[in-house]
Amino acid sequence: MGDCIVNISPEKTAAVLVELLKSSGMTCATAESCTGGGVSQAITSVSGASEVFLGGAVTYANSAKEAVLRVSSDTLERYGAVSSECAVEMAEGSRRLYGADIAVSITGIAGPGGGTAEKPVGTVWFAVSSSSGTRAEKAFFQGDRELVRKQAVVHALGMLVVAATSV
Amino acid sequence: MGDCIVNISPEKTAAVLVELLKSSGMTCATAESCTGGGVSQAITSVSGASEVFLGGAVTYANSAKEAVLRVSSDTLERYGAVSSECAVEMAEGSRRLYGADIAVSITGIAGPGGGTAEKPVGTVWFAVSSSSGTRAEKAFFQGDRELVRKQAVVHALGMLVVAATSV
Repeated sequence: MGDCIVNISPEKTAAVLVELLKSSGMTCATAESCTGGGVSQAITSVSGASEVFLGGAVTYANSAKEAVLRVSSDTLERYGAVSSECAVEMAEGSRRLYGADIAVSITGIAGPGGGTAEKPVGTVWFAVSSSSGTRAEKAFFQGDRELVRKQAVVHALGMLVVAATSV
Repeated sequence: MGDCIVNISPEKTAAVLVELLKSSGMTCATAESCTGGGVSQAITSVSGASEVFLGGAVTYANSAKEAVLRVSSDTLERYGAVSSECAVEMAEGSRRLYGADIAVSITGIAGPGGGTAEKPVGTVWFAVSSSSGTRAEKAFFQGDRELVRKQAVVHALGMLVVAATSV
C-alpha cells in the first residue's frame, strides 16, 4: 500500500468526499494526531466544504486527546495513543463534539522518532464513526515523515468516502 | 502584504517557531477557521513539534466555534465569525482548552464565495493569546482561495513567532 497511495492527491479525494456528502446531506468531522490537521486542510481546500465539514480536533498531546476528545486516561495508559482503542475513542469523541454524521480519526507514528519494535515508525491507526457504529483499522506506511503523513491523510479521506457511501 | 508573503515557506517559519518555543519551554495551540488546519499542519511538519505543540481546534462551522471553543452566540450574531471579537474568543478558547502558553486564531473569508462589501474575500482576522493578554489584527490578502489560505497560515505562524519572543 505504501507505494501506490503516494501519487493520490489529497485535494482530489477531498473533492469527491465533499460532493458525496453534499448529495447525501451529511456532515463530517475529524480527529487528528500524527497528520496534524492535514485531513481537515485537504477537505477545506475544496470550495464549498463549509456545507459539509463542521471542523476537526487536532490533538497532538495526550493531554489534548483527553481534554478535547474525552479519550480515557485508562486507554492511553493501557494501550497507548497509537492503538485501535484510542482511534475509536478519538473518532467517537470528534463525532460527538462536532455533532457530525461521520468522523474519522488518525493516530500514528510519523517519525523519525517515536518508533518501537512493536509499533515502528509508519504505524497508523484509523477509525471511522457513524450511525452504523465505529470501525478501526491499522495501516503501515513506508517513507519519511512527510510521506507517512501524506499517505495517512489520503487513507483517512478514503475511509470517509467509503463511510459516506455506506451510511 | 499580499504579494511578499506568498514566497515564504510555512514549514520554514514553523521550524523557527518550534525552535523558539523549545528554547523558552513554552507550548502553543491553534484555533483555525478559514485555514482549516493549515497552521497546525505546518507546525507538525517539523520533527519534534510534539514537544511544544499541544493541538488545535479546527472550527469551520459556527456551531463548532461555540461548542468547541466556547465562542459566545452573542458574538457570532452581533459581529459575525469574521471579526476581532470572534478571533479573540477563539484564541482564548484554544489556549484554555489545550492548556497552552500561546494560542493563535484565524477566521476569515478565503473565497470564492462568502464575501460582502464590508468583508470582501481575503479579509482575515487573527488573534494571539498569551499570559500577556490577547491581541487581534486584521489582514487583507489578495489571490485565490489557495493563496489567501496560504498567506493566512504564514501570517498566523509569524504572530506565534512574535508572541514566542515576547512573552
